[in-house]
Amino acid sequence: MKQRVVFLPEGVAVEVLPGTPLFRAAVLAGIEIKSSCGGKGSCGNCLVKVEEGKAEIKSTGKLSREKQEEGYVLSCQALVGDEGLRVMIPSESRLEEHRILYDRPENGEAEDDACLAPEGIPLCTQFKLALDPPSIDDNTSDLSRLRLALRREMGLNRPETEINISTSALKNLAGALREGDWKVTVILAHFQRYAEIVAIRAGHDDRTVYGLAIDIGTTTVAIYLVDLLTKKVVGQHGDFNRQARYGDDIISRIIYAAEEEQGLQELQFAVISTINDVVEELREKAAIPEEDIVQVVAAGNTTMTHLFLGITPRFIRLEPYISTVSTVPAVKAGTLGLKVHPEAWVNSFPQVASYLGGDIVSGILYTNLAHKDDIILFLDIGTNGEIILGNKDWMVGCACSAGPSFEGGGITFGMRAMSGAIERTVIDPVSLEAQVKTVNNARPLGICGSGLIDCLSSLKGAGIIDRVGSFQADLPTPRLRRGEGGWEYVLVWAKDSAGVGDIVITESDVKTLIRAKGAVYAGIRTLLRMLELDESVITKVIIAGGFGNYLHIHDAIRVGLLPDLEYHKFEFIGNSSLKGACLGLLSREALDEAEETARMITYLELSVGTTFMDEYVAALFLPHTDLTLFPSVESVENRI
Amino acid sequence: MKQRVVFLPEGVAVEVLPGTPLFRAAVLAGIEIKSSCGGKGSCGNCLVKVEEGKAEIKSTGKLSREKQEEGYVLSCQALVGDEGLRVMIPSESRLEEHRILYDRPENGEAEDDACLAPEGIPLCTQFKLALDPPSIDDNTSDLSRLRLALRREMGLNRPETEINISTSALKNLAGALREGDWKVTVILAHFQRYAEIVAIRAGHDDRTVYGLAIDIGTTTVAIYLVDLLTKKVVGQHGDFNRQARYGDDIISRIIYAAEEEQGLQELQFAVISTINDVVEELREKAAIPEEDIVQVVAAGNTTMTHLFLGITPRFIRLEPYISTVSTVPAVKAGTLGLKVHPEAWVNSFPQVASYLGGDIVSGILYTNLAHKDDIILFLDIGTNGEIILGNKDWMVGCACSAGPSFEGGGITFGMRAMSGAIERTVIDPVSLEAQVKTVNNARPLGICGSGLIDCLSSLKGAGIIDRVGSFQADLPTPRLRRGEGGWEYVLVWAKDSAGVGDIVITESDVKTLIRAKGAVYAGIRTLLRMLELDESVITKVIIAGGFGNYLHIHDAIRVGLLPDLEYHKFEFIGNSSLKGACLGLLSREALDEAEETARMITYLELSVGTTFMDEYVAALFLPHTDLTLFPSVESVENRI
Repeated sequence: MKQRVVFLPEGVAVEVLPGTPLFRAAVLAGIEIKSSCGGKGSCGNCLVKVEEGKAEIKSTGKLSREKQEEGYVLSCQALVGDEGLRVMIPSESRLEEHRILYDRPENGEAEDDACLAPEGIPLCTQFKLALDPPSIDDNTSDLSRLRLALRREMGLNRPETEINISTSALKNLAGALREGDWKVTVILAHFQRYAEIVAIRAGHDDRTVYGLAIDIGTTTVAIYLVDLLTKKVVGQHGDFNRQARYGDDIISRIIYAAEEEQGLQELQFAVISTINDVVEELREKAAIPEEDIVQVVAAGNTTMTHLFLGITPRFIRLEPYISTVSTVPAVKAGTLGLKVHPEAWVNSFPQVASYLGGDIVSGILYTNLAHKDDIILFLDIGTNGEIILGNKDWMVGCACSAGPSFEGGGITFGMRAMSGAIERTVIDPVSLEAQVKTVNNARPLGICGSGLIDCLSSLKGAGIIDRVGSFQADLPTPRLRRGEGGWEYVLVWAKDSAGVGDIVITESDVKTLIRAKGAVYAGIRTLLRMLELDESVITKVIIAGGFGNYLHIHDAIRVGLLPDLEYHKFEFIGNSSLKGACLGLLSREALDEAEETARMITYLELSVGTTFMDEYVAALFLPHTDLTLFPSVESVENRI
Repeated sequence: MKQRVVFLPEGVAVEVLPGTPLFRAAVLAGIEIKSSCGGKGSCGNCLVKVEEGKAEIKSTGKLSREKQEEGYVLSCQALVGDEGLRVMIPSESRLEEHRILYDRPENGEAEDDACLAPEGIPLCTQFKLALDPPSIDDNTSDLSRLRLALRREMGLNRPETEINISTSALKNLAGALREGDWKVTVILAHFQRYAEIVAIRAGHDDRTVYGLAIDIGTTTVAIYLVDLLTKKVVGQHGDFNRQARYGDDIISRIIYAAEEEQGLQELQFAVISTINDVVEELREKAAIPEEDIVQVVAAGNTTMTHLFLGITPRFIRLEPYISTVSTVPAVKAGTLGLKVHPEAWVNSFPQVASYLGGDIVSGILYTNLAHKDDIILFLDIGTNGEIILGNKDWMVGCACSAGPSFEGGGITFGMRAMSGAIERTVIDPVSLEAQVKTVNNARPLGICGSGLIDCLSSLKGAGIIDRVGSFQADLPTPRLRRGEGGWEYVLVWAKDSAGVGDIVITESDVKTLIRAKGAVYAGIRTLLRMLELDESVITKVIIAGGFGNYLHIHDAIRVGLLPDLEYHKFEFIGNSSLKGACLGLLSREALDEAEETARMITYLELSVGTTFMDEYVAALFLPHTDLTLFPSVESVENRI
């Protein structure tokens, strides 16, 4: 028999069967609880307090005895029993408390380069037509008349031989033509070999049509609202991907989608509803109705793209790591439940491989790499480090698992790059005292990914850690101490932190970071070795993604994350997946080119052969076993 | 406040607002009441008896006082008032009591020529593929792998450059490939320039795939269930078009669709549910599930095609008579609510003009007219007479309104060609006695369309009517008498009829028939005159439709309905719309050719100019004003 669970302080109630985890019951009640382990009971983020009734506890995980006695449980490990419950969800367990801006966390303003105007015709355009009214002598059907006028208007610019029409436009056609006295506005979607009349409106007016460029990130969703006639970005907004409640990382989500009943549908719904909420905010700000958004282009990694379309990502995770789609068929927005014009087409960027997805292809489009003579290295560093090397003639790519540390995961005081995150650390080599700078100069809460690289470099520079990341005992500073898990260095004392106690970085954190940076560098080296090239051929290193925005090149080279090249060769391009999606939205030719690019990239599976493993082991040093690869660092080391 | 109406004897109850006609309430209750006037109160078919409660009577129409006193009302004119009602629907008012077979009313057996095997590839085919399993070295996505195997399997026979995939097939893809151990069965729909993977099944088995060829007639719906692999018709079934409850003829239905709230949706639902019931019966007989029907091809007149797709036919009726579509976009069965595979494509035959529809184009395809050197006259005679004249180089066509008399409408004892319908009449010129033959040799109930032509010819031959159709008074037979509406001739005395009293044909009936046959003949003449040709160029007259099946050429010429040609030039081809639809289903090339044919036919609007009216007036004689056009009849006349 179903039991009633009331979530406090809202008082939202749901009825669920005995055996349902509280975490799932909360999802059903529409409340988002933090979780980063996918419900395994290991992350400890999903703490709730049972105030009335008794839950069945599968596991207490790392929960302290005190917390247990106060009534706290891990909501993923506490099951509804045979009585009703009243459950308090503390604010620290709630996902929505942690909202960040979507592109550049410190700054929500539209960027200057957000206005893109590529060559070519947008995926969807609008035509104002004035048709000759029919007569007894000129009695072709409405659709034939419209097609003729459309072909005439389009001239020979688009040689589509076939013009389809959506069902709803077809039903609306006769009425619209007559209501507008044979003047109509036609919304036309362009495909490679044909076009479709998506919608039709009576008469001519000043209304424009809009499209969405969407970057579907594992962590965040970022959207541009784009005027398809002026080719200008008229709004941008983003939010956390609501899938986070099913696990922080891709693997947790694949497991959830593959193994839970309705898991795939839940994950699809989570990302669609995230998008819908962002779009609603964009629409309200711009004061436009749903049906004026007539085209969508999405870029995401392979798993995100599969979940967005409701396709199982199950086999992405299982050897030999096969996705269902690489080139992705366009689908109607209505079938996905997107709150835009239901006949709008949704195009998704193509994937290269299971771990080299549409977000990277979109980024490559934005860099214009496919037209460059010079050899460029493209890096997108997050949980995975995705790497492309090439020029207009060839491209190779790979993905290396960096773990969640660059996004703040798995590190004692790791956090995302939001207010209060330490992004810069300076350690005096003599006093061994630390000074930190935080995002928004707020009181320190933790350390973000780029801050961790910076910190690693500072620790090494001050001689607190050695080349393999071991702490040097017996240094004359109270900041270096033995904690519960071994050696640690206090970056911020409790009195200066935002109530989180001493902010420390542990030896275990350092080793984790070395493994992460080593994986990325080994990926770069493996691509170069595959082609028998060395770093010197690289004329430019393009770094995409939020992580790159705060990275200090100097420190990243010094720890051996990035190759040792002149600083001017490095370029940060922000959310290139989003910007590339915008290019694809605004140019049919650009999107077609992206499909070509995806096919052109040779994917290197790093688990095949021994090259990557050799390179990885060699890279588990600061900066590297082979110091000749880091001449600028070597010279500094020698100086010290 | 809504009132409860209970229909007897079923006891089905519905709740409706006061003011709702009982006819509509019955529709809501799923009960089909006969009506042929579209709810105007003039046909008197929709009689019901109010047994409890009181209805508000708008009009009693032609209802006799006795009937009124017994509680009978016209259900279209009786509105629900402010109390509940119990209403008995007598069996004679029910539509389903009048079911007839769909193609040849006397014979439900499959015809010999129902098995068609045209050249070319069916619109949807099935491929059994064995894919190479993926590996680390061969890690393309499932869809790319499938496309590659499909292209290889198809060879160079179909040069589609693009292979799309339906959303549900895409979602099913990864599972099907692995469940079938990389053996799959792919259902592929073929379009002119691309193909679509409609569905995918794990493994290989003996299952086949089916398609439906549908003739959507104004009166009846006829369907072939076709095995798309063997190209054989494996079942055929038909039923009355349930739209009949909204009016017998096209114009009533257009008005209902255009002017009633939800009228269009009701009419669409009516035809879709008719089709669904027929398909269910076919499926049950063949023991196949819904999802094995993967393709649909429909042929219907322009209005039927619009209603089938849910497109308003409003403007078909209003000058200058413009339809929304001529070439009809394919739609998914799921969007129409057809109970077949929801991803199945539904193709509809193209229209030539508002009154020259896909049923005629389909018929022309079946005749192979577009490949003939000789000039052929194609006739489809029903409420409208649709006429095509031409050969492989040119075709002209027109539609003339014959009225409902050839289908038994508007004639005192007119009825459809079902059991008990008089199909043959012999009148002795001396005794003036009549002998009749009925369908199935049942006791006479009325006269069917072809029987009426025969009767007209017999009356003329016996000298009972003259060349303008006036009865000759003072003939020595009790069969000729003055009835309420003027002169009439008794074909069958009450004692010999099936309880319907004396079966008569009146002078008014005769005049109606002369107008009907005059319109058809004038249409033929107008086409010939437009091209400055005469009857002698016609090498063959092909007569389509149920009406033709019983027609006696001799009589049809004698009354001036058909041109006076040698009998061997006439050919009856039955339901050519259905057979042509089957050809289109089984051959992509044939369907493409039909689209070409529809564009090629020059449509002549008879209301323009005076030629048709001149010809019509000249044809209001038996057989014609100009007897030189009917030399064989003239010689007989002279002999008498």
